Amino acid sequence: MIPPVLLGVDWGTSRFRAYLVVAAGAVLARIETGDGILSVAPGGFETLFHQRLQAWLAQWPTLPVVLSGMITSRNGWLELDYQALPADGDSLAGAMRAHPVGNGRLLHFVPGLADLADDRAPDVMRGEETQLLGLLSLAPALPARVLLPGTHSKWARIGQRGIEGFRTYMTGECYAVLREHSILGRLMRPGAADPAAFDKGLNDRRSGAASLLQQLFAVRTLGLFERMPATDLADYLSGLLIGDELAAALAGDDDSPVHLVGSGPLVARYRRALEVFGVSGRVAGSDLAVLGQLALARKRGLVR
Amino acid sequence: MIPPVLLGVDWGTSRFRAYLVVAAGAVLARIETGDGILSVAPGGFETLFHQRLQAWLAQWPTLPVVLSGMITSRNGWLELDYQALPADGDSLAGAMRAHPVGNGRLLHFVPGLADLADDRAPDVMRGEETQLLGLLSLAPALPARVLLPGTHSKWARIGQRGIEGFRTYMTGECYAVLREHSILGRLMRPGAADPAAFDKGLNDRRSGAASLLQQLFAVRTLGLFERMPATDLADYLSGLLIGDELAAALAGDDDSPVHLVGSGPLVARYRRALEVFGVSGRVAGSDLAVLGQLALARKRGLVR
Repeated sequence: MIPPVLLGVDWGTSRFRAYLVVAAGAVLARIETGDGILSVAPGGFETLFHQRLQAWLAQWPTLPVVLSGMITSRNGWLELDYQALPADGDSLAGAMRAHPVGNGRLLHFVPGLADLADDRAPDVMRGEETQLLGLLSLAPALPARVLLPGTHSKWARIGQRGIEGFRTYMTGECYAVLREHSILGRLMRPGAADPAAFDKGLNDRRSGAASLLQQLFAVRTLGLFERMPATDLADYLSGLLIGDELAAALAGDDDSPVHLVGSGPLVARYRRALEVFGVSGRVAGSDLAVLGQLALARKRGLVR
Repeated sequence: MIPPVLLGVDWGTSRFRAYLVVAAGAVLARIETGDGILSVAPGGFETLFHQRLQAWLAQWPTLPVVLSGMITSRNGWLELDYQALPADGDSLAGAMRAHPVGNGRLLHFVPGLADLADDRAPDVMRGEETQLLGLLSLAPALPARVLLPGTHSKWARIGQRGIEGFRTYMTGECYAVLREHSILGRLMRPGAADPAAFDKGLNDRRSGAASLLQQLFAVRTLGLFERMPATDLADYLSGLLIGDELAAALAGDDDSPVHLVGSGPLVARYRRALEVFGVSGRVAGSDLAVLGQLALARKRGLVR
């Protein structure tokens, strides 16, 4: 077995993901649980860390450990200040914090980023900066625009100076709260949806002169008037919201491809949405956090 | 005591309101409870109606009763089809349904309206049509645009043919679900807010090129960076949402006054928002449902 050179932990709001990584960046083994930071009591992070990774830590007592994600937020294990833009591997590696735990072991935490452009409210990320570094290590063609779908979808601009700017869209969280807690969820039924319902939402929003707050009500009335099956309503809502995001994020921009970070149904959904908007979406792969952590570990001299 | 000529019931999603009304339209007495239709089990409406209004029904055994609001929806007491536009007092009175209850008494239910304009999804109202008729009976100056703030804010266009069109904005419900169920509520603290926070939300949204889904995230980051007190964040969110609604609802329209239906803090908030957008808001008063019910009762010959 090829020996690992790094233990990477991507510890987010709702998920805990740990990886044993070899020098070429491949993942040798992984552990993924629902122990996101919101489910851990204050002071409980170190205990949980050792419980979940006991076997690996014992087997590889000197393996460097890098952590990124919401674990460095106010509600995490070790709060780190957001770093300013532009940011690249050098600046992020320089801002990492070493934190000792038992057995003389040092853990290395990666800070998040803040976009403090003067003309609007601050924007922030924790975890995505490491994925972006991972993407850069794979495909250094610049400039690039990158979309990281999720509960909070992030659009980043990568240029000669590294990560130069980004914007967050609350698309995924709005979808979840409207579906679960608003009147729009009442008529929805689970079931195999017609992909056309998602496309209709995208196109209705793209061509809609009305505001999103008005158009959302169509999710209810199309159901009330039985113009759309109850099993399609959730996809239609998703189309309206993602359509609103894309209309804004792509406005005034070129038609160069958008690099999509991630995997699974949400990325497929965004890729389809980009296609409907006439933009090519290149799926950049998952596990980019691992590649970013490996690049940072090398900059810090933790991995040769 | 002047005798009442009508018992009016405005039975909505979350409130039950009943009124004894005199011929001039004044309210002699009122009962308001939280027995909205969502809190009543199917089949329980008639029992509740008699419980809440027992004294009045006994004292005035022949008093006509008119009901409007969500009580005629699928989850209400008696489902009535939506009526098409344009709609006026004659067409709505003609579409009312008489329904017998005990003691030979007839209850008269007012149907809701649907705007089925070809170019978009249907829109619907139940209850607001009666308030609009009440407004018309007070101030028949035409044409007029009318704003009925609420969980679902409605903008109606009244012309020579009566109610000619309307649009629903989910502003109030989005505010509630985002505040209670999304990450945006986490940093909010109750307390006396600075009115400037609401205005800032209005202006940020009015001038913001970004999408609402992106700008909403500022509610979090302004709190995270302590650029806005935690007690102001809810008002800022309200300003962003109402600002989005107004930007869309007022687009391309004239600067004629907007008639505001209702009373209390929400109407005051919308009136301020209209002012910030350079439009005069005329508060048309509350209890308009009563005046609309009275007008309909006269058309039906229930009241002389």
